[in-house]
Amino acid sequence: MSILNPAILTELEKQSIELPSWAFGNSGTRFKVFGTPGTPRDPWEKIADAAQVNKYTALAPSVALHIPWDLVDSYDDLRKHAEDLGVSLGTVNSNTFQDDDYKFGALTHEDAAVRNKAIDHHLACIDVMDATGSRDLKIWLAEGSNYPGQADLRGRQDRLNESLQKIYARLGDDQRLVLEYKFFEPAFYHTDVPDWGTSYAQVASLGDKAMVCLDTGHHAPGTNIEFIVMQLLRLGKLGSFDFNSRFYADDDLIVGAADPFQLFRILFEVIRGGGLNNPDVAFMLDQCHNVEDKILGQIRSVLNVQEMTARALLVDKDALTAAQKSGDVLAANAVFMDAFYTDVRPALAEWRETRGLAGDPMTAYAASGYQQKIAADRVGGVQSGWGA
Amino acid sequence: MSILNPAILTELEKQSIELPSWAFGNSGTRFKVFGTPGTPRDPWEKIADAAQVNKYTALAPSVALHIPWDLVDSYDDLRKHAEDLGVSLGTVNSNTFQDDDYKFGALTHEDAAVRNKAIDHHLACIDVMDATGSRDLKIWLAEGSNYPGQADLRGRQDRLNESLQKIYARLGDDQRLVLEYKFFEPAFYHTDVPDWGTSYAQVASLGDKAMVCLDTGHHAPGTNIEFIVMQLLRLGKLGSFDFNSRFYADDDLIVGAADPFQLFRILFEVIRGGGLNNPDVAFMLDQCHNVEDKILGQIRSVLNVQEMTARALLVDKDALTAAQKSGDVLAANAVFMDAFYTDVRPALAEWRETRGLAGDPMTAYAASGYQQKIAADRVGGVQSGWGA
Amino acid sequence: MSILNPAILTELEKQSIELPSWAFGNSGTRFKVFGTPGTPRDPWEKIADAAQVNKYTALAPSVALHIPWDLVDSYDDLRKHAEDLGVSLGTVNSNTFQDDDYKFGALTHEDAAVRNKAIDHHLACIDVMDATGSRDLKIWLAEGSNYPGQADLRGRQDRLNESLQKIYARLGDDQRLVLEYKFFEPAFYHTDVPDWGTSYAQVASLGDKAMVCLDTGHHAPGTNIEFIVMQLLRLGKLGSFDFNSRFYADDDLIVGAADPFQLFRILFEVIRGGGLNNPDVAFMLDQCHNVEDKILGQIRSVLNVQEMTARALLVDKDALTAAQKSGDVLAANAVFMDAFYTDVRPALAEWRETRGLAGDPMTAYAASGYQQKIAADRVGGVQSGWGA
Amino acid sequence: MSILNPAILTELEKQSIELPSWAFGNSGTRFKVFGTPGTPRDPWEKIADAAQVNKYTALAPSVALHIPWDLVDSYDDLRKHAEDLGVSLGTVNSNTFQDDDYKFGALTHEDAAVRNKAIDHHLACIDVMDATGSRDLKIWLAEGSNYPGQADLRGRQDRLNESLQKIYARLGDDQRLVLEYKFFEPAFYHTDVPDWGTSYAQVASLGDKAMVCLDTGHHAPGTNIEFIVMQLLRLGKLGSFDFNSRFYADDDLIVGAADPFQLFRILFEVIRGGGLNNPDVAFMLDQCHNVEDKILGQIRSVLNVQEMTARALLVDKDALTAAQKSGDVLAANAVFMDAFYTDVRPALAEWRETRGLAGDPMTAYAASGYQQKIAADRVGGVQSGWGA
Repeated sequence: MSILNPAILTELEKQSIELPSWAFGNSGTRFKVFGTPGTPRDPWEKIADAAQVNKYTALAPSVALHIPWDLVDSYDDLRKHAEDLGVSLGTVNSNTFQDDDYKFGALTHEDAAVRNKAIDHHLACIDVMDATGSRDLKIWLAEGSNYPGQADLRGRQDRLNESLQKIYARLGDDQRLVLEYKFFEPAFYHTDVPDWGTSYAQVASLGDKAMVCLDTGHHAPGTNIEFIVMQLLRLGKLGSFDFNSRFYADDDLIVGAADPFQLFRILFEVIRGGGLNNPDVAFMLDQCHNVEDKILGQIRSVLNVQEMTARALLVDKDALTAAQKSGDVLAANAVFMDAFYTDVRPALAEWRETRGLAGDPMTAYAASGYQQKIAADRVGGVQSGWGA
Repeated sequence: MSILNPAILTELEKQSIELPSWAFGNSGTRFKVFGTPGTPRDPWEKIADAAQVNKYTALAPSVALHIPWDLVDSYDDLRKHAEDLGVSLGTVNSNTFQDDDYKFGALTHEDAAVRNKAIDHHLACIDVMDATGSRDLKIWLAEGSNYPGQADLRGRQDRLNESLQKIYARLGDDQRLVLEYKFFEPAFYHTDVPDWGTSYAQVASLGDKAMVCLDTGHHAPGTNIEFIVMQLLRLGKLGSFDFNSRFYADDDLIVGAADPFQLFRILFEVIRGGGLNNPDVAFMLDQCHNVEDKILGQIRSVLNVQEMTARALLVDKDALTAAQKSGDVLAANAVFMDAFYTDVRPALAEWRETRGLAGDPMTAYAASGYQQKIAADRVGGVQSGWGA
Repeated sequence: MSILNPAILTELEKQSIELPSWAFGNSGTRFKVFGTPGTPRDPWEKIADAAQVNKYTALAPSVALHIPWDLVDSYDDLRKHAEDLGVSLGTVNSNTFQDDDYKFGALTHEDAAVRNKAIDHHLACIDVMDATGSRDLKIWLAEGSNYPGQADLRGRQDRLNESLQKIYARLGDDQRLVLEYKFFEPAFYHTDVPDWGTSYAQVASLGDKAMVCLDTGHHAPGTNIEFIVMQLLRLGKLGSFDFNSRFYADDDLIVGAADPFQLFRILFEVIRGGGLNNPDVAFMLDQCHNVEDKILGQIRSVLNVQEMTARALLVDKDALTAAQKSGDVLAANAVFMDAFYTDVRPALAEWRETRGLAGDPMTAYAASGYQQKIAADRVGGVQSGWGA
Repeated sequence: MSILNPAILTELEKQSIELPSWAFGNSGTRFKVFGTPGTPRDPWEKIADAAQVNKYTALAPSVALHIPWDLVDSYDDLRKHAEDLGVSLGTVNSNTFQDDDYKFGALTHEDAAVRNKAIDHHLACIDVMDATGSRDLKIWLAEGSNYPGQADLRGRQDRLNESLQKIYARLGDDQRLVLEYKFFEPAFYHTDVPDWGTSYAQVASLGDKAMVCLDTGHHAPGTNIEFIVMQLLRLGKLGSFDFNSRFYADDDLIVGAADPFQLFRILFEVIRGGGLNNPDVAFMLDQCHNVEDKILGQIRSVLNVQEMTARALLVDKDALTAAQKSGDVLAANAVFMDAFYTDVRPALAEWRETRGLAGDPMTAYAASGYQQKIAADRVGGVQSGWGA
């Protein structure tokens, strides 16, 4: 008998985690981007790689696009391509940080012409969403300033709101806008949406179709992220997660790699707040595999989320509540830690096999020969990366 | 001709900064509280000391009380005592962190009896406000937990809201509730109001008489505090400041001592957002003079705020706006820094003398003999501190 | 067959973790110290409580003293008292932060008279060591300044060295001095021994009997502590650990509570560098049980260290080395994580039972009635705390 | 009569700050590198731009090179080119982070062949030094790992030492090796030289010609950098500064821009410790002008250092010492702050004019037409950047 009871397995079976197309391309730091054999050269190849992750895990049925990195002539064709490979096209991510015009801002720029260009880009992204059937437009606002005095913080915030309203107005009935916040980078003095409070205040003023995106790597040192998860779920404004992990800044490491216990606490609050397998709360990865294999890195990532979800589902809530109510600090902590320390991996492997999957997706993928095949096939062309 | 033009002097003349009564008592760290000769032994003596700060600076016409530390039999008498000394009684600060009942929370406690006790304490504080004529009830929520699993984060947030609503309902027409947030301490895993977003979400749900209190020492490392000032002013929810400074945690050092340029940036945003000499935005100190003289420390603090306000008022806004609009980063920064680097101290000293004050309030107070007098007079009794 | 092979069990059997006497007294924050029934009122009762931890875990055979908190008339008697209870007296901790004289420093003070007083206190501590048979004198330097300009950083560092030399000269042949470093608190601008580099430079200049003490809670946010463990072991200067955990500052929470994976990484480097069960590297706790039961809190703590040591011993070093050498990032990380995620608790419980211990020391202690007994017996007197 | 007395002016006259050639090329973040008209396309143009900074400030008589970014056929010619423009060639910076071979380390790599390649690169850098007459080889070790378990921390540290010894052995009698440390980036889990302690331990083992390089942007949040300056000067191992400023990570902003008071404190400790105008302590800039003009940005930077040095020289040391000795915290702080708040800019402008320089170098350069000329002339070719 598995330590994972049927109710838990039912939840795990429903779980899905969207993959970012750009995770399969090259990424790096300002100092160096390392290339690797087999890196995709276009959106079609990225989706093919993403489909491998889903094939071995049954956890990743959709792929997020990034415009313009994933511009293609026909999104109908791209959608069919994805569907043929067993995945769908998901969230559309806009990009207003790589044109020369955007050096001093996009949706917040002093110049209305630049703002309008950035707004138009978002409208074009919604056109793509219409074609792909995507629900969510994700806006990461890479805007800010590097020096005190450089920018009018207040003016920018007001202009941001105006710009967002114009984008919001274009959303279809079943479409949403999710606004990401980030502590810093690429701007180093101020960032226009630096914290959840700012994102919340902005989307609350837009309406019900605007939500906050919480990227687990975008907080100040020491921030209690699960508290923010709790608060946004309570306020009805947690639209999506960008999962990754970090030791210092926005390191974009594999989710769960830096602080597995933090991931556990986050997923516990997701469950506590009704966010698990809730269509309003999208789970996505947003990571950079600078030094490790990309497809395996993505497999590792979705497995980390699955394993930690299983642990969080194991928390004995009745015992926890009883201990909390009685002020028994050590007992409450013990109930919590007992779930974290339980090794769910053997039970998950068994369960995977009952579903026709390999017990160990990492090994199964590695043995499949896919990596060798793409390394051999994908010769010539330009490897995908973050280039505009 | 002064570098401070009449318009600037008019603003400076209107400036007032409330002093906390507890700054005149002893304070320290968990390791040691050092006493000093002359430390007040009751609220009457604290107010007498606070009045000295105002006497030499004309900047500090009111004194905040802390209940129960400043409990007296007659607040009428205390008010008259204050008025005789040229100051008034200001913000009332509640205390729900020093009773044994509050070990696991007060307004958020699992047990309704404890919550009601804490609510009643706040109602009693409003009674004091009625007697003193104070406008603001300041709530610093020292509640949280030390261990993951110890507390139900969501339940506590909901209970907090219920408790605050009951307190809010008791406010008079001209009274306000200001809710302080703090990153951590005395709780070390989670704090129930850890950031401005949480305080904002809570007070927004209460109504127009509830506002956010921004303590400059209560943020995560690296937080851009002036951005939060901007945002709260924009949202109409910046109710008050607790000024102090910090290098690491909530060090409660003299405002401006740790990072004078940060104070400049904060005051610039206050001015930019219409918060200077705006009755809706109260300026207060909240500091601990652990190793330095207390009265002189408070004089130094209000002078620091005054001097930095003068510098911030010197920013050439037209030149700044022009540089910002043209994307001239270095020019905009130069306009900003020029004001910061201007030495306003001689002009302020001259101006003080035209108002019948000493040019150098620090020296004037030191020469007054007051410190020697209280050291000699205040013998016996128990020096005030943070004891419950 | 246990997942813990005989070689691992042999290591675990040798493991010992010293308990701090002060963990059994009351502690708190600058805002409040909560008392609890049964708290010891003198060193004798503290040692009795510490002996309970060892009784149920066989992990904590010695107790560190803090002078003057643990001053007694006869250390011979105290030693016999300890031995009767199955424990010994360990490290002696000095205290130069609670006398009024030390407001501006002790070993670093400008005034030679104060320095000499602080040096004499350390010599007296060595007298205690002679009487108790303790090997280590631990010096935590709580000295520093709160305001830029307040102190002459360089002069203090030079005076510190002079003072330490005088203390070092008094050490017996088999005695050692371990110098703790701490990022900040109780001083808020500068601390005289803020980082491992400073402690290392100071003790390296003293000689072979001077070592560094690494307190796991005394680092800047984001610091890679296991790297420092590696480096100090490499340099032959890691003298001891003060174990605890933290989310923000020096929270002094139960070791492993805040970031279990960090504790795993630290213990892995201890093993890698030959520091496990190496008499030169003392394992101690230094924690504050502000809101949880103290004896249970100490039991939980030593079990956390034991469990995590078991996990760290499970790392397949050959497989790890092979993956590291081949640049297979994900494989190396997987070997590492596999050990961390292995649930060693059932095997440890079984092993405990083979040694005549309860499988679950927490439950066994709770069922013993000791807590109820001391709560009933220890009435009257003053509960121990951090008072001078 | 100037507020800057002759003794101060004599010190200021001797001051020199080396410029990094790469500051004149393009730089950016991992998201985008913005180009600007007139950006140099080769080392010759970089040096020409650097010479402009010296022309208007008389503060920057030498230029640091970066190999291979500044590879030329003849360093004799490059040196003559520099000398013709009134500057000399300074520190040579190695680069072991941009070859594909260095993905998993260079001087620390598991593979001796890669280590030898990296060592050989440094020997080639010393060849360049021989040709240019440069004294210092600066090694920034960009090596580390991204995932726990990925690397053998201890083995890498040992190999680093071996590699450094081989490089050290090749130094000429008048040459030095300076080893930079950095908290994180480009590696995100561990960095092989992350702190001053590690750099110090490594260079101390090499010998007298090896020193530590302190980059002001390479520390954990909250680190007291002036303390490290003090300590390294005390230990005789502060070889050089890389000046810049930061709010969050290694932002590489203009020195003094983020926290002017910190720069003041650093320069005060430099003076206190005998490091000003001491040939053993090289002053350099290491910055990235991502969004601002590069030549003007460098002029602003050296002026910031000069202005803050002037302020630090103004500290009344006798008064400071007297206040420190008497434990008068506020008086000591006041002496310190008085110097910081003194506006030295008018006196410096006057003094510049007496030396045949423009009072305002920023304006003078802007009016010179040089920027327009290079924008017009430097058409075609590839703008310099950080490309390998």
